[in-house]
Amino acid sequence: MSNQTKQSVSNSNKKDREPNNFSFTITKQSTDNQARLGIIHTPHGDIHTPAFIPVATKATIKSLTPQQINDMGFDSILSNTYHLYLQPGPDIIEKGGKIQKFMAWHKPMFTDSGGFQVFSLSGKLCTISDTHVTFRSHIDQSTHVLTPEKSMQIQRQLGADLIFAFDQCLDINADYPTTQASLKRTHNWETRSVLEFNKINIDNSQALYGIVQGGRFTELREESAKFVTTLNTFGIGIGSIFGDPKEESVKLVTHALKHLPEHKPKHLLGIGSVDDIFYYVPLGIDTFDCVLPTRLARIGHIFTRPESGGNVENKFRIKITNAKYKEDQTPLDPACTCYTCTHFTKSYIHHLEKSKELLFYTLATIHNLSFFKRLMDEIQQSIQNDSFKILRQKWIDQTEEKIEENKEHNSKI
Amino acid sequence: MSNQTKQSVSNSNKKDREPNNFSFTITKQSTDNQARLGIIHTPHGDIHTPAFIPVATKATIKSLTPQQINDMGFDSILSNTYHLYLQPGPDIIEKGGKIQKFMAWHKPMFTDSGGFQVFSLSGKLCTISDTHVTFRSHIDQSTHVLTPEKSMQIQRQLGADLIFAFDQCLDINADYPTTQASLKRTHNWETRSVLEFNKINIDNSQALYGIVQGGRFTELREESAKFVTTLNTFGIGIGSIFGDPKEESVKLVTHALKHLPEHKPKHLLGIGSVDDIFYYVPLGIDTFDCVLPTRLARIGHIFTRPESGGNVENKFRIKITNAKYKEDQTPLDPACTCYTCTHFTKSYIHHLEKSKELLFYTLATIHNLSFFKRLMDEIQQSIQNDSFKILRQKWIDQTEEKIEENKEHNSKI
Repeated sequence: MSNQTKQSVSNSNKKDREPNNFSFTITKQSTDNQARLGIIHTPHGDIHTPAFIPVATKATIKSLTPQQINDMGFDSILSNTYHLYLQPGPDIIEKGGKIQKFMAWHKPMFTDSGGFQVFSLSGKLCTISDTHVTFRSHIDQSTHVLTPEKSMQIQRQLGADLIFAFDQCLDINADYPTTQASLKRTHNWETRSVLEFNKINIDNSQALYGIVQGGRFTELREESAKFVTTLNTFGIGIGSIFGDPKEESVKLVTHALKHLPEHKPKHLLGIGSVDDIFYYVPLGIDTFDCVLPTRLARIGHIFTRPESGGNVENKFRIKITNAKYKEDQTPLDPACTCYTCTHFTKSYIHHLEKSKELLFYTLATIHNLSFFKRLMDEIQQSIQNDSFKILRQKWIDQTEEKIEENKEHNSKI
Repeated sequence: MSNQTKQSVSNSNKKDREPNNFSFTITKQSTDNQARLGIIHTPHGDIHTPAFIPVATKATIKSLTPQQINDMGFDSILSNTYHLYLQPGPDIIEKGGKIQKFMAWHKPMFTDSGGFQVFSLSGKLCTISDTHVTFRSHIDQSTHVLTPEKSMQIQRQLGADLIFAFDQCLDINADYPTTQASLKRTHNWETRSVLEFNKINIDNSQALYGIVQGGRFTELREESAKFVTTLNTFGIGIGSIFGDPKEESVKLVTHALKHLPEHKPKHLLGIGSVDDIFYYVPLGIDTFDCVLPTRLARIGHIFTRPESGGNVENKFRIKITNAKYKEDQTPLDPACTCYTCTHFTKSYIHHLEKSKELLFYTLATIHNLSFFKRLMDEIQQSIQNDSFKILRQKWIDQTEEKIEENKEHNSKI
């Protein structure tokens, strides 16, 4: 009996349609809301959900070694197909033994489909037809063609465990007719993605996520959710959710999730901030990827926990470049237990940033990612203990109440 | 009995003049040459010599965490007083608990006197009198005054274990009268350095190195060595040795060392390359500091051992930016056991460099420093086993013979 067969047999929750090497087990369903604890089983190990998936755009989380990422306890990371396609190219990564071997990260990995970057980075240099997308490289302006089939082939060469169908990512403010036309194309592309994926995934070494689109129209989100449910994919992503206005985004995700099968893992693409995570976990989102903690780290925005003054109003952040930290002998976040906070002061990290020292990027990134890892650990714990509401109260509601109180107070003065 | 007293009593080789907390023990003297094994004892631990001391210019070895430096096995690092004086300033570092606490490096540290950088970085904006140096900051062009006393006071605030007297660093090509005049000034500044040091080092938490100067004149090097020997310092540095032409530099160092006391640790400032180390260890140099491995790493020059083709002719380096490494699935140096070489291929590191990814700097720096650490370990071992000549043959002489052979061969064709 092969290892693969053993693994799938040992998982009692295995669904018929799932590839042999992959399964998603829901280990606890919250009674208060749709939040759940789960495990995504992959050939490279398990992902405990709800999880935050750090972004390793070009096969590296900027400034960190895989050892440092592993030390923080992350189960999984996500790389960008568009970037890797252009540099170093999928052939190089395939020859290097596929992405995990190439970058020495031996745990589960995601790649996105390239769709988002094609549209966001190529901008006006990108032309779309129903059959394909033509775009210019943001690196050397060379012209490239991408199709759903090609996205699948590239992601096959890259070799991540969990990959995404090729979709058209649309401006969230597009009007109804534009969004409707785009959605029709996306659904067609997703069908083509599944066909190509089934053809080339001969060893079941990868699993596919479909993607729900539909812009800012709940009706189209519903249509998309229903369509994606018909596809034989392992998981489902929700795309083009851009955070603000928060109420509208939450409504769109809520609506999409209502029409998606409970047993599949759900990924919210490109999200999230701290409050995003507290909004979407109770709706049933299992995984999030976002460049926020890593990108913000590199410009000096440091996440801080509620115990240290982090709240919705300050977006749980301080700006370490602020002169007031020049002589501050406390850690970035006194309540944090990461490598950075147990070894260095704000004063030192302020100095590194002002000196544009490379170590600044490393230490700030370690801290910000550790912040999100611990947040997800606490969220998992709270789902386990049926105390999610209490955790949310500590992180989110208290601040919102305070903001309301202040508003009232100020209006009375 | 205090810890300090215990420590000095326990060291049988303790010299009367040495500060209580510091001592230098020569554990093995080579019979073939002047090479020796030693231990520099400091309040922050021991430095096993001969040792290569990596440079942490602004209280950080560029791109590395202290943990990564420690993992490589380094005993000690060196920071630059000039840079730290300008940014973040000695007050900030003193308030942060002195340099080791500030940067979370809890092993022995050196700081240089600032002399070298004042002259090399300020260039024509620097004016020198017998009493002081006036210079402009290379960061913001602000004007500053440095004196021997101030250098001692700044180094006191920084708080490294091993510090250097303030000297005038001179262009190695300066003529005799210029060098002679400069040397007179340097000796005067060193006397003032010792006076100030003795006044402020009340707790014996630091130990001082004098510096031999004298440009390219053996006569002046001898004069300087004799003068520095009269100073009550813990160790002795040799400055303004610039590598090329090698024969002349070796002659100067040989001449200086002849006139220096055997029992004091000797530091060669700003040196060395691989062949430098093989030249100067058998003359009796105990410690080297040099930016070469770290600075070269950041521009893609990767050190390689003789087993992997490194030799005097190629300066023990390959250039990882070379297109031929794009698909190379071997480590930077297949004979290397560092973190970088046991986890990543040339292909991956080539990709990181081409993508200007921050991780490139980290991985290349880890490799280059590990290369020097292992070289020094092997040199120590060879002194212990009386096999230094064999080691030198493997690293240096073989190549030099080959170069000669090739020359002969080519001349015969």
